[in-house]
Amino acid sequence: MNERPLILVSNDDGYRAKGINSLARVLMEFGDVVVVAPHIGRSGKGCAITSEVPVKVEKVHSEPGLEIYSCTGTPCDCVKLACHAVVSRPPTLVVGGINHGDNSSVNAHYSGTMGVVLEGCMKGIPSVAFSLCSHDPDADFTPTYDVIRKVVSAVLEHGLPKGSCLNVNFPDSPSYSGVRICRQAVGSWVNEWEAHRHPRGGEWWWLTGEYVVEDDDEAADRVALGNNFVAITPTKIDFTDYTLLESMKGWEL
Amino acid sequence: MNERPLILVSNDDGYRAKGINSLARVLMEFGDVVVVAPHIGRSGKGCAITSEVPVKVEKVHSEPGLEIYSCTGTPCDCVKLACHAVVSRPPTLVVGGINHGDNSSVNAHYSGTMGVVLEGCMKGIPSVAFSLCSHDPDADFTPTYDVIRKVVSAVLEHGLPKGSCLNVNFPDSPSYSGVRICRQAVGSWVNEWEAHRHPRGGEWWWLTGEYVVEDDDEAADRVALGNNFVAITPTKIDFTDYTLLESMKGWEL
Repeated sequence: MNERPLILVSNDDGYRAKGINSLARVLMEFGDVVVVAPHIGRSGKGCAITSEVPVKVEKVHSEPGLEIYSCTGTPCDCVKLACHAVVSRPPTLVVGGINHGDNSSVNAHYSGTMGVVLEGCMKGIPSVAFSLCSHDPDADFTPTYDVIRKVVSAVLEHGLPKGSCLNVNFPDSPSYSGVRICRQAVGSWVNEWEAHRHPRGGEWWWLTGEYVVEDDDEAADRVALGNNFVAITPTKIDFTDYTLLESMKGWEL
Repeated sequence: MNERPLILVSNDDGYRAKGINSLARVLMEFGDVVVVAPHIGRSGKGCAITSEVPVKVEKVHSEPGLEIYSCTGTPCDCVKLACHAVVSRPPTLVVGGINHGDNSSVNAHYSGTMGVVLEGCMKGIPSVAFSLCSHDPDADFTPTYDVIRKVVSAVLEHGLPKGSCLNVNFPDSPSYSGVRICRQAVGSWVNEWEAHRHPRGGEWWWLTGEYVVEDDDEAADRVALGNNFVAITPTKIDFTDYTLLESMKGWEL
């Protein structure tokens, strides 16, 4: 019987990205790693799933302790299909990343990396997302490794409550001021669109924008990142607003 | 000065769907309605946004009190682009639906209708999603109208707390046992994939599956729907797990 943990890894930057390949190497210290990740970049796909076309998965690499599969689906699809048709035993852990870019604050809702981890969590598997606040395709991920090792060790030791996962974001820095357990920062996107003329006429819009932090609490993930802390935001599948639930009982409906 | 509320409407079934056109007619009783909805079905797109291609929006219908625009983006894109480039004043309300299909429980994470409403909420606009538990393209939406009117009136009167929105689901029934304020039910999807051979060889997977309720609490939205109640689930942008946050302070990191 194989006693090594099986660690399922995915992302939204695609299986060729430096971040996921860096992550896979670190995770091989803890168990057998199976990567099932999008065949192309699928950033900003959140928890999207694919129902309008079928999805293909194929093995692209194999060595002792590591298999890599390319999947035409979204990040969520990758986890769903990996669990259904790829892994030979239930994963011990689902890990997303290392994302090229910040997934703190409201970005958690748009993030395909968080899609991976929310999906793992919905399947009852302890799940952790790692993201680096740099979009550089050749970013240096080595400063993140020690914290990744500590977080993975801790999750393998403590587990995570059913329905909860971790969203870990790293500042773009060669060394960190520390690690902080955070809440999701309040913030929003502004100036989100840029108009362009099509060569044959007509206006098309590119999504762009600036993220504005509307929070100054040191316990808010985006604020902690700004202060050079690694931000770990425990995140729940259940996003019911229980306070509003109580107050709405007085509504006439 | 125009004192009528401006109500922005979108969905994930596309601007031609019966559900959104039924909804727009009801909402015209409350204000000027601007529909900006996907040009095709974009079900299951959650909070996905489009960054890899530009997005187009064009007017397809206009009459007093109602404008309809078709947009090539996701449901979230529709709200973002509507607010940036379509509406002439800030929307009073963002409304998603009426979705053809159940968006209760964990489905809220996959739902493009909830993507509409979470996006509206992130923009600080009171936002409400309506969904009917029927995938019939010709479903009868008339039983939902009275509750829609009551919910919209109540939200226009009370507002909603910043960062919170409503996820309203209707049972597929000609009349309801009542309206219940709910929490998100616990449940999961199983048997999610069906393998098909491509005519020229190779295996492709279609996403399908069965939803299993793992909850018997009458206050859980999927359970309330099963008992023929309209389920209103107040939902938060902030999905931090504050309980886990506290307990993680004891972790060695």
